[in-house]
Amino acid sequence: MSAPLRVESATDAAGGEGAAMMRLIEELYPICRSITGDGLRRSLGIVARDLPLALREVPSGTQAFDWTIPPEWNARGAFIATLDGRRLVDFADSNLHLVQYSLPMDRIVARDELLAHLHTIPEHPAWIPYRTSYYKEDWGFCVSERQARTLTDAAYRVVIDTTLAPGHLTYGELEIKGASEDEMLFSCHSCHPSLANDNLSGIAVAAMLARRLMSAPRRLTYRFLFIPGTIGSLAWLAANEARVPRVKHGLVLSCVGDPAGFTYKQSRRGTAEIDRIVAHVLRHGGTAHRVLPFIPYGYDERQYCSPGFDMPVGCFMRSPNGGYPEYHSSADDLSLVRRECLEESLENLWQIIGAVEGNETYKNLSPKGEPQLGKRGLYRPMGGQQAQDFDQMSLLWVLNLADGDHSLLDMAERAGLPFATMRAAADALAAAGLIAAGPVESRKG
Amino acid sequence: MSAPLRVESATDAAGGEGAAMMRLIEELYPICRSITGDGLRRSLGIVARDLPLALREVPSGTQAFDWTIPPEWNARGAFIATLDGRRLVDFADSNLHLVQYSLPMDRIVARDELLAHLHTIPEHPAWIPYRTSYYKEDWGFCVSERQARTLTDAAYRVVIDTTLAPGHLTYGELEIKGASEDEMLFSCHSCHPSLANDNLSGIAVAAMLARRLMSAPRRLTYRFLFIPGTIGSLAWLAANEARVPRVKHGLVLSCVGDPAGFTYKQSRRGTAEIDRIVAHVLRHGGTAHRVLPFIPYGYDERQYCSPGFDMPVGCFMRSPNGGYPEYHSSADDLSLVRRECLEESLENLWQIIGAVEGNETYKNLSPKGEPQLGKRGLYRPMGGQQAQDFDQMSLLWVLNLADGDHSLLDMAERAGLPFATMRAAADALAAAGLIAAGPVESRKG
Amino acid sequence: MSAPLRVESATDAAGGEGAAMMRLIEELYPICRSITGDGLRRSLGIVARDLPLALREVPSGTQAFDWTIPPEWNARGAFIATLDGRRLVDFADSNLHLVQYSLPMDRIVARDELLAHLHTIPEHPAWIPYRTSYYKEDWGFCVSERQARTLTDAAYRVVIDTTLAPGHLTYGELEIKGASEDEMLFSCHSCHPSLANDNLSGIAVAAMLARRLMSAPRRLTYRFLFIPGTIGSLAWLAANEARVPRVKHGLVLSCVGDPAGFTYKQSRRGTAEIDRIVAHVLRHGGTAHRVLPFIPYGYDERQYCSPGFDMPVGCFMRSPNGGYPEYHSSADDLSLVRRECLEESLENLWQIIGAVEGNETYKNLSPKGEPQLGKRGLYRPMGGQQAQDFDQMSLLWVLNLADGDHSLLDMAERAGLPFATMRAAADALAAAGLIAAGPVESRKG
Repeated sequence: MSAPLRVESATDAAGGEGAAMMRLIEELYPICRSITGDGLRRSLGIVARDLPLALREVPSGTQAFDWTIPPEWNARGAFIATLDGRRLVDFADSNLHLVQYSLPMDRIVARDELLAHLHTIPEHPAWIPYRTSYYKEDWGFCVSERQARTLTDAAYRVVIDTTLAPGHLTYGELEIKGASEDEMLFSCHSCHPSLANDNLSGIAVAAMLARRLMSAPRRLTYRFLFIPGTIGSLAWLAANEARVPRVKHGLVLSCVGDPAGFTYKQSRRGTAEIDRIVAHVLRHGGTAHRVLPFIPYGYDERQYCSPGFDMPVGCFMRSPNGGYPEYHSSADDLSLVRRECLEESLENLWQIIGAVEGNETYKNLSPKGEPQLGKRGLYRPMGGQQAQDFDQMSLLWVLNLADGDHSLLDMAERAGLPFATMRAAADALAAAGLIAAGPVESRKG
Repeated sequence: MSAPLRVESATDAAGGEGAAMMRLIEELYPICRSITGDGLRRSLGIVARDLPLALREVPSGTQAFDWTIPPEWNARGAFIATLDGRRLVDFADSNLHLVQYSLPMDRIVARDELLAHLHTIPEHPAWIPYRTSYYKEDWGFCVSERQARTLTDAAYRVVIDTTLAPGHLTYGELEIKGASEDEMLFSCHSCHPSLANDNLSGIAVAAMLARRLMSAPRRLTYRFLFIPGTIGSLAWLAANEARVPRVKHGLVLSCVGDPAGFTYKQSRRGTAEIDRIVAHVLRHGGTAHRVLPFIPYGYDERQYCSPGFDMPVGCFMRSPNGGYPEYHSSADDLSLVRRECLEESLENLWQIIGAVEGNETYKNLSPKGEPQLGKRGLYRPMGGQQAQDFDQMSLLWVLNLADGDHSLLDMAERAGLPFATMRAAADALAAAGLIAAGPVESRKG
Repeated sequence: MSAPLRVESATDAAGGEGAAMMRLIEELYPICRSITGDGLRRSLGIVARDLPLALREVPSGTQAFDWTIPPEWNARGAFIATLDGRRLVDFADSNLHLVQYSLPMDRIVARDELLAHLHTIPEHPAWIPYRTSYYKEDWGFCVSERQARTLTDAAYRVVIDTTLAPGHLTYGELEIKGASEDEMLFSCHSCHPSLANDNLSGIAVAAMLARRLMSAPRRLTYRFLFIPGTIGSLAWLAANEARVPRVKHGLVLSCVGDPAGFTYKQSRRGTAEIDRIVAHVLRHGGTAHRVLPFIPYGYDERQYCSPGFDMPVGCFMRSPNGGYPEYHSSADDLSLVRRECLEESLENLWQIIGAVEGNETYKNLSPKGEPQLGKRGLYRPMGGQQAQDFDQMSLLWVLNLADGDHSLLDMAERAGLPFATMRAAADALAAAGLIAAGPVESRKG
């Protein structure tokens, strides 16, 4: 998969991929998404404008392992007003104001009762928190600490214009078929309302990766899931159990637009090929990064890595969940996401895909002693000079480790060289007839 | 084995377990113990007042592998006196004065000969060393360097009133039967004369552990050995070879009363379950500690870990043998042993026993995706908040790793949480029907 | 192989082994060696004066795997002269001046053409580089940067009096038979012209090792190869494929005369017995050293460790190839090599051979509990003293690990004691009938 074509379409004509990703985020930002409902449905429809995304609708009440698809929730409006009708807190100003899945109501509420249903972030008095109550019937408002302090009246009128009724859970699925039935999965939660980095950034980068892949030669089949968190991945898993063993690599994408370094959270296995590939690409990528072991908290990797599936799925982030002050608040807004950070995330993921595609195993066809590279134009002619040419070293490494037991990633790790360099060396040696790719079945991982 | 009953008896009515351990040490301290003899026999009798300890008598001349039970040695008195009858060094003042197993004698000895049989600690001129000559017929006195310097006469009368004759080696054995025939062994050398930390502290803590276990629910069978060093463990092993495979865990207890941090010396295997459990408990225990690899020098773990047995037996100490200045000298007296240190040793050992008892393997009964904890009252109801509740994490870890391959210790180590926390989480999940304990046979270790 | 006889012969009568090695280097230094030719042949003849070295002649055109033995090259002289006949650069002054395998010529060359065939080391303006063009027909001169700057005439006469014609490649081979057909291989490249450390030092140390081995009791068969780099090892491998599996350990020797600390480059396997032995000996040897992982660049270990052979052959050096400023230049002269450094290299290699010879596996014949060392005169008689005697510890370690699974090297590594100490302890215990050496077949490595 060397040098795939870059997509040129109407969407990114103005400013390229980075600008296209930013525009998508800006368009999606104002919409009130949840784990069900029209906001989610409309958002996926926008993503589907540029991609052949299939929108799946799962009826409320459908069983997904230990869970049940909840009723569909839709919010038309909500406010807290003084008894003389002045609106102090209004869903129309920010969809974060309403605790998701709040039940409908319209009544006068005493101050104490109201305060018991108010959520603030005292340490950031200007920010509105993000809260949900999907699986417990409740209501509530999220306001800034400053707003909360002004609520000194004895009672307020509270209006919540929502519906909670049988309907559907919606998710988007895109399959990009490759030569093999083996799959790589990209999954991003798409259920958050006006939060930019978490996770409109993941949606935008995933959509752009999919566009690149559609026009690139590819060995694997790629699957993209745009799903509500937890219940969405459970719904997909429940409907696709037979497909799980085909998924050889996977990444959950989240929070990939902020300027922090990269955070890779390993799969539960910890030594899956994807774990090694991501660590390798980040190590040679030049951006600050860290690799964290799996923990059973976070995003949908929790479901993919549950013991009944134990899929090779890690989580690729910049700032991790809970790891930046603006997390789950109104401060996770458009100003937090930068075009160049989205682009850098995209490029690293593209390198990762390149390694997933190209991680072959080779046999040296001239394994006794070194083959004479000079007569094949692969060696510097003048002996006696000191080695300073990494291309030379990459040729020697590939020849030395092409014993059918080492994947190209194994070689790159042992050589301390970037995968792409080893890939180029292997291509040159294969072209010279000195090595041959082994059968895919014998690959490690 | 959660929250076993604490023992309430006459012995510890006044001041609890710590005070009871101190009183036992104080009572045993003046007695002249050796690897055989009435002092050892009497000491074990005192321990047996509060425990159903069986006193075993092994006749002199009995073979124990490469060794032979030596003659029984008893000392009634010994002194060095001036020729005009002034006693300068007297066994009645300190039983350390006499080299153990000194042959009887009563004669005038020239100064040079006497000096050749005197032992001192020049760097601690006020301390009397502790020396033995069990297996080589000899005699000698241990004196302070200061005393030695006063012995300037040309000759002295030396009287050693001992007997060395066929008799018995005595040791104490206590079996506390549990549900399983699998055993945990506690072994402490009981042959030292007036040395408090080494090893009256081990005797006292072992006796108190035994009392706790007798009134606690228990899965394993527990065996306590109060034995003379080396020859005692060899004698027990020779008489109990068939029992050795039943011992799944073991600890030699020594020097557990001084204020130093803990020292755990691993079994020869180094990765036995007991090695991992002790390291885990100490790591989460809050007291300074270190874990040392096995070496073939030390206490009776040398015998248990000889290559013909290779038992999973480590050595639990505070200061290690040879690792404190007072070691093997009169300065290892009652002032070195502290009640709170004995108590802390006891508590850590109790945690260790708790982990040995409770190190189950589990199967998640809802392994595909996470089960919905909320509907079982095991989850915080409000989504969107950051995780800060370790109990929540321990539930998620147990669910994620309950695949039949991970013991609860494996889970605790991977989660970085205390075993007791994981134990509580597993109990809650088992009560909710979400996990089931695996068969004992499938446990790791 | 304890305390083998030291060789006493005419050669080293004056000054011992170190002086003899220095004299050999000094004698070989002026000769113009290459990968073929009379200089190489004469040099091997000098080495063969003191050793029963077989000189092998491989005809030009012989195939060695992917390579062909090149024509034989001989140089009688070469110079660059002004058009009026003043010789500015002359092979007679330094054989490094002529690029090896330069084709014969005698013509007037324009300055630009000459400069294109000149090699210098700009950062060391007084040094002449060393360059070769074995496998590409070419010509060239190596000069100091200072000399190069004086070549300002428009044209020069260039004379190269060489022959390049069918002939032979010569190498030296010495087999020193031992009790076993298992072999240890020492290989040193012998093709460099006037470079002292690289690799006359290796030749001299190898020759002295061979002399020691010839008069020492030995278990293994030892093979010494004095070969031209790359093509020489390929020629030997091609002619001796059946022998390769017998080589259980091997070292390439190079650059062992300079005052740097030791550098050991591991075999491709990385965990071969020789890798562990060299690291162990160097760790206990007191000289600064480092152990580097295998890379497929360097000396003939590249061929021995090609994937078709993967022999347990590392590379033993002081300064590594490319790792000192004088490398491959006229500054790698006699002043760089020191007698005491040669001697120290020799001694460490001798320790390595000692460990290779003596790395037995043992069974404790009294494995249940410790045997009673005292009754065999192997224990200090007085109990109670602190352990401070490493000989005592080495006895206990050998007994504890003599289970048939641990080699003496395993024991030494676990004990943290020098191999020679463990060797002495094992000898004492075997003499006392307490352990027995296991069959050679069961040895690890």
